Amino acid sequence: MRLSRYFLPVLKETPSDATIASHRLMLRAGMIRQQSAGIYSWLPLGYRVLKNIERIVHEEQQRAGHIPMLMPTLQSADLWRESGRYDDYGEEMLRITDRQGRDMLYGPTNEEMITDVFRSHVGSYKDLPMTLYQIQWKFRDEVRPRFGVMRGREFLMKDGYTFDLTVEDGLHSYNRHLVSYLRTYERMGLQAIPMRADSGPIGGDDTHEFLVLAETGESEVFYDSAVTDIKLGQRDIAYDDVDQCRAVMEEFTSRYARTDETHDADLFAQVPEDRRRVARGIEVGQIFFFGTKYSESMGALVVNDKGERVPVQMGSHGIGVSRLLGALIEANHDEKGIIWPEGVTPFPVGIVNLKQGDAEADAACDALYKSFSALGLEPLYDDRKERAGGKFATMDLIGLPWRITVGPRGLKNGVVEVTSRRSGESEEMTPELAVETIAKRYATL
Amino acid sequence: MRLSRYFLPVLKETPSDATIASHRLMLRAGMIRQQSAGIYSWLPLGYRVLKNIERIVHEEQQRAGHIPMLMPTLQSADLWRESGRYDDYGEEMLRITDRQGRDMLYGPTNEEMITDVFRSHVGSYKDLPMTLYQIQWKFRDEVRPRFGVMRGREFLMKDGYTFDLTVEDGLHSYNRHLVSYLRTYERMGLQAIPMRADSGPIGGDDTHEFLVLAETGESEVFYDSAVTDIKLGQRDIAYDDVDQCRAVMEEFTSRYARTDETHDADLFAQVPEDRRRVARGIEVGQIFFFGTKYSESMGALVVNDKGERVPVQMGSHGIGVSRLLGALIEANHDEKGIIWPEGVTPFPVGIVNLKQGDAEADAACDALYKSFSALGLEPLYDDRKERAGGKFATMDLIGLPWRITVGPRGLKNGVVEVTSRRSGESEEMTPELAVETIAKRYATL
Repeated sequence: MRLSRYFLPVLKETPSDATIASHRLMLRAGMIRQQSAGIYSWLPLGYRVLKNIERIVHEEQQRAGHIPMLMPTLQSADLWRESGRYDDYGEEMLRITDRQGRDMLYGPTNEEMITDVFRSHVGSYKDLPMTLYQIQWKFRDEVRPRFGVMRGREFLMKDGYTFDLTVEDGLHSYNRHLVSYLRTYERMGLQAIPMRADSGPIGGDDTHEFLVLAETGESEVFYDSAVTDIKLGQRDIAYDDVDQCRAVMEEFTSRYARTDETHDADLFAQVPEDRRRVARGIEVGQIFFFGTKYSESMGALVVNDKGERVPVQMGSHGIGVSRLLGALIEANHDEKGIIWPEGVTPFPVGIVNLKQGDAEADAACDALYKSFSALGLEPLYDDRKERAGGKFATMDLIGLPWRITVGPRGLKNGVVEVTSRRSGESEEMTPELAVETIAKRYATL
Repeated sequence: MRLSRYFLPVLKETPSDATIASHRLMLRAGMIRQQSAGIYSWLPLGYRVLKNIERIVHEEQQRAGHIPMLMPTLQSADLWRESGRYDDYGEEMLRITDRQGRDMLYGPTNEEMITDVFRSHVGSYKDLPMTLYQIQWKFRDEVRPRFGVMRGREFLMKDGYTFDLTVEDGLHSYNRHLVSYLRTYERMGLQAIPMRADSGPIGGDDTHEFLVLAETGESEVFYDSAVTDIKLGQRDIAYDDVDQCRAVMEEFTSRYARTDETHDADLFAQVPEDRRRVARGIEVGQIFFFGTKYSESMGALVVNDKGERVPVQMGSHGIGVSRLLGALIEANHDEKGIIWPEGVTPFPVGIVNLKQGDAEADAACDALYKSFSALGLEPLYDDRKERAGGKFATMDLIGLPWRITVGPRGLKNGVVEVTSRRSGESEEMTPELAVETIAKRYATL
């Protein structure tokens, strides 16, 4: 993308109403625009990151065998009356009356609707196990929306629902989700720690939240520092393997790690003192196994192998897709701007032309642009007639992992400059080697 | 995808409330489920087609130089009061009050919001031309939702907005959209004819609707049959080339083709009698150039090269993404079911195993599955223990363009059977040739 043809409205001044880094930087980098309290437009740069996160979530969900579908944003209130949650949910549910006077609502979550889909179409244990998921916009009418997309009202979420015949199978689905979530976050360059949590209005006894450690997190967290040493890494996961998924779940959850909602001071005291940590965390996902809570009240029954009709065992599993942008920036920024991990960056590399209009510099930039594009790595090319200082500041602000600086002086010696946004280190090399070096970084993602 | 692990709830009986073929077939093929009047869940098979259509729209928009972004579904009523449309829009607009008592609405279109984005961030002619677009859910509270996704209430639409300094530039943006839309529909295997239309609540003098001819269309259309002979085909389009885009526009719009809203009997009478056609059409897109209608009322001004502040010239351009599924099926089905064009089919090929459990047949199917998958063509493999007749009926109903039938008898002779859904013709060949033959059909898409 040539910047002269793009829409990247970066702001010079820091918006006064943004109190945390990610909110400030998303506004300054021209990623979002607030349209109403807690409701945002995703400007082109923000949209690109949102799509990258969505893509990673889709890929990891499907790798785990989960089936994508899509439910509407608006739901009938009647469904929620069946489960008893219509009255329970409180003012966070946006209630709507349509022109025919029907009670509708903007879905804050979809347990009722997916249970309705299931009970209408599935009747036999032979169709189980089954996991359906979607990535769809949701609405929660927060009384104090704040922190930008971290606590917005209209937000994008992946929500998945598992259907199993037995509790044992349901717990495998739970473990499988835990493992697939670990992989999902790691691919984005995030460490998200599963912590025992409270189930809230979703229900059920088994639930873990995934938290990213950050000073600006909304939850206080208590953990054994040993949990931060565990990584999933490149290990091979067979998602149908019950024992392997359980072993990974146990490995990641056996150390003490809890949010303030479930914190137990006595248990925490048993953690060796030098490993006890109290910090803050941002919730980026949560998994639940709640058994028959919805299937009983809504009549989602299947015939088992003995011919008996039994309520299906269910769980639900969420990833905060839009909120992840905030969490990623909270965990990856400095005083100059954002530092995107390579897995989610809006553009893999930025090209800065120090002398736009100079035939040789322009030609070298065009050649780099073509080489990267041919490799499927579309650069953001700053082809504006601006001072170098302004171009560098913009690149630092929007946080592309790699920058190539092209100028007449370097070209005389046959070199361009490659700069890492994270380390700040620069190195001169031929354009060919620059392409090769940067392409290598993306080859394994 | 193995059918035994998929969620494809096909219906045996024909739903009684579905009066047109596409609605009936989408329900029977397990593509959608109605959740409320005019509001649907997209079950896995329907979701796959929806995503294919979305992908083609994205690719063609970006090929034309348009920039993707995303606006929220809910909007503030205040924006619509600025343009004067809040009171004008009538009962089709779903009006919502949030917990703070603010007037909101579920966006039926986005001229106001995009104008707000533009005026907040763009001030100079140097940033023009600019085209921003999104694919996002919208809501129109139709008094009589019907025909399934063809006239639903919650629907997915691509809406794009052009910003230009002069009327002349604005008309080029209009022509560019017309050309890119032609290519978009052709890639889906659809002929959509641009017809002079009425601008309705959007406004402006220049507007064309794109109509797919179908008996079940909601609009009466009048046209010179010569328009159906024109195809864009594989010609090379330079979207920045003003003359070329205008020439294509003129080629496609110089013959008489109008909806009942703009029909002119005297002009129509001048068409040679043997080429006069009266038929019905399904609207699948519309383009508008309305100049300064919104930029004046909402103060979206830019400084021109003389230093004067002038209202920006705007247009808007829509494609009915979810409705296209209905239009595609209306144009492509027979008494057995859907016949997907190869550009949008949910799976490129279906594999039917005539003797599930037979070691040789299973191995041959697995090998075919692997070969197609390695080429990026994921098959739908019917690996259930069902009668052949039931398997064939399902494949015919869901309409995959190609079916490979694998059975012990054929395998003894080293062959499988390849069947075209459209022609119904079958041919025996080796599995290797079957893969090669079908892969070729998708290579040029």
